[in-house]
Amino acid sequence: MGRSVGRLDGGAKVTGRYEYGVDASRPGMLWARLARSPHAHARILSVDTTAALAVPGVRVVLTGADTQGYLASRYVRDEPLLALDRVRYPGEPVAAVAADTEEAAEAACRLVRVEYEPLPVISSVEAALADDATDIHPDWASYWVSPIIRRPGGNVVSHASLRRGDTAALFESADHVFEDAYEVPMVHQASLEGRVAIAEVDDTGVVHVWSSHQYPFGLRQDISDILHIPLGKIRVTVTGVGGGFGGKLYAGVEPYCIILAQRTGRPVKLRYTREEEMIATSPRMGATVRLKTAVAADGTLLAREGWIDYDSGAYSESSPGVVSVGLLTLAGPYRWQALSIDTRAIYTNKAGCGSYRAPGAPQAVFAGESQLDRIARELGIDPLRLRLNNAVRDGDLGPTGQVLNNVSLVETLQAAADRIEWDCAGAGDLRGKGLACTWWTTTGMPSSAYVRVDEDGTFVLITGATEIGTGAVTAGVAQICAGELGIDPADLKIVSADTETTPYDFGAQGSRTLVQAGNAAIAAADDLKSQMFDIAAAKLGCSADELEMSDGEIRHTNDPELSLSVSDVARLGGTRGGLLGRGSYEQPPTPYDADSVQGAMIGAFNIPSFATHACEVSVDGATGEVTVDRYVVAQDVGRVVNPRYCEGQVTGGAVQGIGQAMFEEIIHRGGYVMNPNFTDYKLPTLRDVPHIETILIEVPSDSGPYGAKGVGEQAIIGPPAAIANAVRDATGHPIQRLPITAERVWQSMRSPRTAS
Amino acid sequence: MGRSVGRLDGGAKVTGRYEYGVDASRPGMLWARLARSPHAHARILSVDTTAALAVPGVRVVLTGADTQGYLASRYVRDEPLLALDRVRYPGEPVAAVAADTEEAAEAACRLVRVEYEPLPVISSVEAALADDATDIHPDWASYWVSPIIRRPGGNVVSHASLRRGDTAALFESADHVFEDAYEVPMVHQASLEGRVAIAEVDDTGVVHVWSSHQYPFGLRQDISDILHIPLGKIRVTVTGVGGGFGGKLYAGVEPYCIILAQRTGRPVKLRYTREEEMIATSPRMGATVRLKTAVAADGTLLAREGWIDYDSGAYSESSPGVVSVGLLTLAGPYRWQALSIDTRAIYTNKAGCGSYRAPGAPQAVFAGESQLDRIARELGIDPLRLRLNNAVRDGDLGPTGQVLNNVSLVETLQAAADRIEWDCAGAGDLRGKGLACTWWTTTGMPSSAYVRVDEDGTFVLITGATEIGTGAVTAGVAQICAGELGIDPADLKIVSADTETTPYDFGAQGSRTLVQAGNAAIAAADDLKSQMFDIAAAKLGCSADELEMSDGEIRHTNDPELSLSVSDVARLGGTRGGLLGRGSYEQPPTPYDADSVQGAMIGAFNIPSFATHACEVSVDGATGEVTVDRYVVAQDVGRVVNPRYCEGQVTGGAVQGIGQAMFEEIIHRGGYVMNPNFTDYKLPTLRDVPHIETILIEVPSDSGPYGAKGVGEQAIIGPPAAIANAVRDATGHPIQRLPITAERVWQSMRSPRTAS
Repeated sequence: MGRSVGRLDGGAKVTGRYEYGVDASRPGMLWARLARSPHAHARILSVDTTAALAVPGVRVVLTGADTQGYLASRYVRDEPLLALDRVRYPGEPVAAVAADTEEAAEAACRLVRVEYEPLPVISSVEAALADDATDIHPDWASYWVSPIIRRPGGNVVSHASLRRGDTAALFESADHVFEDAYEVPMVHQASLEGRVAIAEVDDTGVVHVWSSHQYPFGLRQDISDILHIPLGKIRVTVTGVGGGFGGKLYAGVEPYCIILAQRTGRPVKLRYTREEEMIATSPRMGATVRLKTAVAADGTLLAREGWIDYDSGAYSESSPGVVSVGLLTLAGPYRWQALSIDTRAIYTNKAGCGSYRAPGAPQAVFAGESQLDRIARELGIDPLRLRLNNAVRDGDLGPTGQVLNNVSLVETLQAAADRIEWDCAGAGDLRGKGLACTWWTTTGMPSSAYVRVDEDGTFVLITGATEIGTGAVTAGVAQICAGELGIDPADLKIVSADTETTPYDFGAQGSRTLVQAGNAAIAAADDLKSQMFDIAAAKLGCSADELEMSDGEIRHTNDPELSLSVSDVARLGGTRGGLLGRGSYEQPPTPYDADSVQGAMIGAFNIPSFATHACEVSVDGATGEVTVDRYVVAQDVGRVVNPRYCEGQVTGGAVQGIGQAMFEEIIHRGGYVMNPNFTDYKLPTLRDVPHIETILIEVPSDSGPYGAKGVGEQAIIGPPAAIANAVRDATGHPIQRLPITAERVWQSMRSPRTAS
Repeated sequence: MGRSVGRLDGGAKVTGRYEYGVDASRPGMLWARLARSPHAHARILSVDTTAALAVPGVRVVLTGADTQGYLASRYVRDEPLLALDRVRYPGEPVAAVAADTEEAAEAACRLVRVEYEPLPVISSVEAALADDATDIHPDWASYWVSPIIRRPGGNVVSHASLRRGDTAALFESADHVFEDAYEVPMVHQASLEGRVAIAEVDDTGVVHVWSSHQYPFGLRQDISDILHIPLGKIRVTVTGVGGGFGGKLYAGVEPYCIILAQRTGRPVKLRYTREEEMIATSPRMGATVRLKTAVAADGTLLAREGWIDYDSGAYSESSPGVVSVGLLTLAGPYRWQALSIDTRAIYTNKAGCGSYRAPGAPQAVFAGESQLDRIARELGIDPLRLRLNNAVRDGDLGPTGQVLNNVSLVETLQAAADRIEWDCAGAGDLRGKGLACTWWTTTGMPSSAYVRVDEDGTFVLITGATEIGTGAVTAGVAQICAGELGIDPADLKIVSADTETTPYDFGAQGSRTLVQAGNAAIAAADDLKSQMFDIAAAKLGCSADELEMSDGEIRHTNDPELSLSVSDVARLGGTRGGLLGRGSYEQPPTPYDADSVQGAMIGAFNIPSFATHACEVSVDGATGEVTVDRYVVAQDVGRVVNPRYCEGQVTGGAVQGIGQAMFEEIIHRGGYVMNPNFTDYKLPTLRDVPHIETILIEVPSDSGPYGAKGVGEQAIIGPPAAIANAVRDATGHPIQRLPITAERVWQSMRSPRTAS
């Protein structure tokens, strides 16, 4: 543990030989393309596929009439595969074509003739909530809805709330009450490889899907739910994944491939262009946040009321889950006497929104941590001190009553402040520093693994967990498993992420892989070792507890001469191939006060960890341009398994967070995406970000492998708030809308509101 | 058991949607072709690849110098991947090319310039054994040789012998001694899909091979041995297999794909043309058989001396194993007081020979059973009676001293004779009937299996066994496994034959799959059931022994109301994906008198079974043309698992055997194959064979699943002898050389030797 061993897929990736989903093909494969709506909101009067079908090479053209009853979205089945009676966002699929070439399929898509009758377009949350707003889903009552979802009606998808303590009384008696509003646009995962899959249907009706996906077992379930195919008739094999960030957690391209493969009897591949990715896949929800916070004169936080309206776009997708996370992140890692938070997801005429690294959190934390700085400054308290004084500590309760253990917020605050040489003049001299604190979960749910030893002594880890580029499987879990087996991680073989040949795993989501799949791998390795020790003990004439294994040998603890090679023992297993250890791990859910929340799919953070971001910026007074001069992340990872990839995750998260803070925004006009490409949608480049100074704090968890906690998502949460606070420190003017563009800073510096 | 359920791969195969190895491809794949020697025997003076390398699209050209030290053949490493200093048969590979297209690779092969110095060509076993014969392998002493092989020197590959009892004394005292010689040409497996593979090397050096192969774990070992790659760095995935018949048991095309993939960094595919299959892959050995048999006046068989010289071609391949089988099959299933048999494999300048369904047996049995008919006729004993009087029975010893149990020869003899309405006039009226008896093994060695239950209650059989078209896996083992699980076989999923994801299996060879993989599947299913019953018992509050499982429910034996669905139990496993049963099976070797044999790799038949073939023919007196009017096979299969596929195996074997008897022969001139295609190499068509009347006899074995014995190979052994005996009965003239062409029959009818 704690060594930066290389990842098993590293060589192939840096030399360009790694096979991603876009590289995959199947013999006799057809290509699919989707015809998409040019309207943001319209009734479909007629669809004519005659001209499309006449394109040479076109095999089949399917429309909404062919896919009736196939409804996607995991919590509210509101999203038709192909629009039937109406379209709800520009780019919504109305027809699916399979052809011999991608070009023929694309040509056919352009010839699908659809007659539309435009409907009023709802392009903002405010418009969606207006009394006379058109109902985007007038037939909502007919949908299957997850029972936990609360929906008052209209264009609200779901509404979660948190009530603890008597907020009204505390607001009444508090020395100070602060009220602010913040706005965050939609941003996109922008993984370099877009969504791509191939489906093939065999003659027994078994559907085999190759997909660049984060969660094969979830995809299998989605396909089963959407297309009404029994689970046992679906196989999902994960290809190389060129980035996910939460964008590849649900069924996306796959159902189209499947229905086209079923109709044509041929394998069908569908890959989205960058433009399709940007206009029609599941970005992070935009949000408007309102916050009202009661504070004592000494800066003690007392109570908070908060409201987040997330823009879900036209479909629910993962928004019901995200709104519940908003409850926990808007409270933040602080001690409160009372909380009253409401978070909602709202339908608008944009593409439905999904999950993106720490879903729901950057929006909430931008608001919460920005307001904390306002409070600190207005009360004349150092923002560092204010945070230290209110920070949660071991034994405190979280916002929904969960008991917090192994809390590391104060450690991260002090480490980040030390590193950035914290001082906070608030002098408005165009240089400033900012802080932001975050907490986040390590998602639970089951992981399973097998570990096999082959007759030549090779160990093979067979895991349902998915390597999506983080190294969690090919470095982290591999390292943990190799450690248990006493071998070099480079000598371990990995078979992963195929619903047919690897055991169940809840997927690469929620910062869970290293912890949960790691625990499962340990259990499987231990089970295998015990089988091997039994065989070796019988052969060596000793007891199995007297044996240990390392470097391909099983030895008597006290008599190293008494030994057998791993391959000897594997062969002695006799029944060759029979030596297989099995392990699984599912952490018990974290208890919390269930009465305090309603409509929430997630009520507590599992193995929470904590982080503090600190940065230093300079602002060009003439242009408003912000330069981030230094950026520090102190993050608790419980226990560092592999420093290189641990730092890589923190660095990558911080860079993506800086992108959200300063550059990224999906710009909509009347529902249309105005910047559906990497020229106009600005991702940070190396030029735009400083070296990220990473400090890994180790406050071990009780249940992660060797004390590890989730690492992957957390670092993306803090940058918008940390940079906004630094800019406020530099200019004296608050930033209440992302991204923090030069124009917006320039305007803020000319606004009447002065720095406190 | 005993129901003709459909095979799981049946639909895809009959609709043409099944993916065979020839259909497989990999992205970025190159194509390989081999340049081959035009000489049967020559020294290589120089090789020039300049012109070949200049062909557009050619990526690499490898010659013997690049592959020095890479030697194939499993028992004697005598076969270079690419000839270096000499070529030993016409068609031997001298260079390997990888190019963007197969056409470019082929064009380059034609431009590889090799300077040869011809050597004397040895085109027959007789020539090879001549005192002054050129040594085909002058550097034999440098080869690795399996320790069991006995080789006197010269052009002999290996020599096996069997000595039991005092043959000399019995020959001395016997009433009659019969001496005959027989000759059998090489024949080819002629599977419709030829040898084909793709290899890809990943950046960590792991070689992934997709191959149309019968024995993936053996192929992995072969690749490791030939190319010196550690076993753990090789993965073999079996594609669909379009026929094997023993021709796909060893490394063939795969090492070429691998070395070319290693050099180019790209996947490489190599598929042989039909001509390459016929001139340069591993057919059944031709043989000359001499037999001397001592018989008492009453027809009691006393002693046999026999000699088989098998023509191994230029390389050993599987001939050392085949010669030992010849010992057992030349003795036949009869009671002997003494035996003295010598079998040898001999090098000649033809393509090396391999394994073909019941290797070594048809040659021996053609001789042995033909001579029995001569004996019967010359002693005036009905051939049926002669066989019944001498047939082995329960408790008898086999030729090498193994104790025979569950012997069924008499049952098969009587059943076949009854069906054919046995009479044997020997009238020479151009109509005749013939009999032949055979016995054969059910190969042992390990098989392993897993059985998993998924959360929807789907059962998945994970087996290293390979479906090569017989239905042994997709019908037989599936049916056995489904039976144990109480489900319809159509609801079982199968994952098979991948060294990375399925457990060890000794491969689809030696009629073993249904028996050995079936036993492993039973053990795995039982292990899974016991895990499931434990969970169900805890939930239902009863004991696990009180439970039974069928049709997706686990029920209390006495109270069917007390039940849980399989999927409930799978989910209760909690640790989803963790419910996996493991099983393996390896039968203890059959004991025999090891002192009685020398140089034999196989000393006894495991779970032997027995069969009798009976047929009726008519001969055209003017042309010699033979028509098989009726053909009966009575074969003991121990226990019929699936009547349809059991009969299919017997029928298919008999048809292939009729091909060997009457049509098939690889015709050599000076080592060259004169008929390397399906126009000139005559396979039987539907027009050439009658309906095969199959009688399945059930004399259960002690150790096969439900008593099953091996089925696959045996039926190919009998036809040459049965048809030769019927022709002799029809014409009064013996047939001592295969195939039994019209010309040969016509000539025999004009030979001076008269019928007895």
